[in-house]
Amino acid sequence: MNVMVKANRRKLDLKSGRVDLSHGAGGRAMGQLIEGIFHKAFDNEWLRAGNDQSAFMVPGGRMVMTTDGYVVSPLFFPGGNIGSLAVHGTINDIAMAGAVPLYLSASFIIEEGFPLADLDRIAETMGAASREAGMPIITGDTKVVERGKADGVFISTAGVGMVPAGLDLRSDATRPGDVVIVSGSIGDHGVAVMSKRENLEFDTDIVSDSAALHGLVAAMVEATGASIRLMRDPTRGGLAATLNEIANASKVGFRIDEEAIPINPEVAAACELLGLDPLNVANEGKLAAVVAPEAADALLAAMRAHPLGREAALIGHVVADDNCFVQMATSFGGGRIVDWLSGEQLPRIC
Amino acid sequence: MNVMVKANRRKLDLKSGRVDLSHGAGGRAMGQLIEGIFHKAFDNEWLRAGNDQSAFMVPGGRMVMTTDGYVVSPLFFPGGNIGSLAVHGTINDIAMAGAVPLYLSASFIIEEGFPLADLDRIAETMGAASREAGMPIITGDTKVVERGKADGVFISTAGVGMVPAGLDLRSDATRPGDVVIVSGSIGDHGVAVMSKRENLEFDTDIVSDSAALHGLVAAMVEATGASIRLMRDPTRGGLAATLNEIANASKVGFRIDEEAIPINPEVAAACELLGLDPLNVANEGKLAAVVAPEAADALLAAMRAHPLGREAALIGHVVADDNCFVQMATSFGGGRIVDWLSGEQLPRIC
Repeated sequence: MNVMVKANRRKLDLKSGRVDLSHGAGGRAMGQLIEGIFHKAFDNEWLRAGNDQSAFMVPGGRMVMTTDGYVVSPLFFPGGNIGSLAVHGTINDIAMAGAVPLYLSASFIIEEGFPLADLDRIAETMGAASREAGMPIITGDTKVVERGKADGVFISTAGVGMVPAGLDLRSDATRPGDVVIVSGSIGDHGVAVMSKRENLEFDTDIVSDSAALHGLVAAMVEATGASIRLMRDPTRGGLAATLNEIANASKVGFRIDEEAIPINPEVAAACELLGLDPLNVANEGKLAAVVAPEAADALLAAMRAHPLGREAALIGHVVADDNCFVQMATSFGGGRIVDWLSGEQLPRIC
Repeated sequence: MNVMVKANRRKLDLKSGRVDLSHGAGGRAMGQLIEGIFHKAFDNEWLRAGNDQSAFMVPGGRMVMTTDGYVVSPLFFPGGNIGSLAVHGTINDIAMAGAVPLYLSASFIIEEGFPLADLDRIAETMGAASREAGMPIITGDTKVVERGKADGVFISTAGVGMVPAGLDLRSDATRPGDVVIVSGSIGDHGVAVMSKRENLEFDTDIVSDSAALHGLVAAMVEATGASIRLMRDPTRGGLAATLNEIANASKVGFRIDEEAIPINPEVAAACELLGLDPLNVANEGKLAAVVAPEAADALLAAMRAHPLGREAALIGHVVADDNCFVQMATSFGGGRIVDWLSGEQLPRIC
């Protein structure tokens, strides 16, 4: 589990470069693509804020909007399918702003020849997930492309939510002395999906943690409100990418403790087998929160009282660090830098 | 131009059926798919209302939300590319509710190997289109799939807007005696895209009409406000599909006059050549409005005073008809029923 990957600092070659899988992997190459093409072209304050959702004012308050595309392969995996994933993922991006989810949209791009029975199963799962979360899918679109021009079905969901008055979580709000809490075991989703890959199939009982986190977030906001600096759901790129993103946005470093990070032993074993670092593996029902130290106990208690936060754990703290490094004390008594991956480790995990 | 297509009334076979290109064509088969799978699974009042956007209340007013996926092929065509199309299309779905466009989201699904220069060009066009319309792209997502698992790039945009107080356009608001107005020549977008298809290339100066219609709509709302029953942008499936949808939603019929429908002679010639009916060909910068007869003159004057409505024309009126037929008096002095296409005429036109 000590894979160190050399930072990939090649520049984006807008003249003759091509998109590769690393540009979608949630790491540094993706950041370059988004920065060098989309932020440049769309150029506005919302994108520069670097959140997974953006906030805007309406006459009655502050709303947030978010979108995500889903290309997970295989479409069905232990613990869910592309449909439930799309609903949960968009709800979670809304929830990470502390917002109450309101409405969803869904755009389907379907490959000719896709079985109607599979589409029906995916839609039913989406409907159930959206009803369970009280966030109806109120508008949608369907496109069909020729056989061989897509891969079964892709889904893009967007969502809007309303931020409770007085709450304003920002990606650069972290400061030295704050502590980091994760809501539960990491790596479950990525390992569950990998276990069903055609070329990789292995035996495991791991199921994806895919879940809607808005209820847990509401309990957290109620318990400690303004002491929460920010929340993120560590999806693509895993906890490593999330902590590095926060460190860079807030110009701080992290010290985390490997032993404190909850990991399902089966996930650890699968990662060992596959040569993966669980810190880089995607989650779809977990969050990381940075919180003022004095609020940590109250927040942990509130999280552990919620079904989706039972294994919540304090895993480290924020330090002043001009290099914005995430450093980890390992189980073996040593230390290492936790970097985000520059290349593509787990394509199409969500 | 007298192609009659027999209505395809086969049922959706959820057990062993498969998605085919007609399910994305904007006609009857797409309606069946949406009804039989998505409306069934998501089951809510918004989807049942059958609009291209859905409205919801927030403290302070009524908002609308919409989404669309874009899979146009080729990605670049005379008059635009997939990026400008995505921005204009989503703005237009917002505008058809009479709403003021506010914010956009964009989800990109990119095929490995896609040239960064093309992605950059598409993003720049999107940025320019969104700035021109005053509707910033505030949040986005990027996914990359392996070579051969997509077709260059697909874009799904979602948008939100705010409806002016007192305005409530509904898909079932049409009544006998109302008149139908189109904002300009039909079929330009579809013909422009077709002219660049690899297997079809033909010489024409036609450019896509792709444009954001919110300014025209604002002028219309200012001029005649509550007299407008509803507006639709006739995209996939063309004017024929739009009129049939309205007829079915409002349980009325239409009588339209072929000679009154503005068609660019080059579009008419290209359709003749390709064996297409221009009424079935997609538009991306046109609207059809149903309006109370006493307001028609004022509305036409307001539309013609706007650059995107200079060729606005009254093309027919609404009649009581239990069969919900759209009937057209042809240029040759005869009459025919204008049906929506059941099959796939123009795949991947948007």
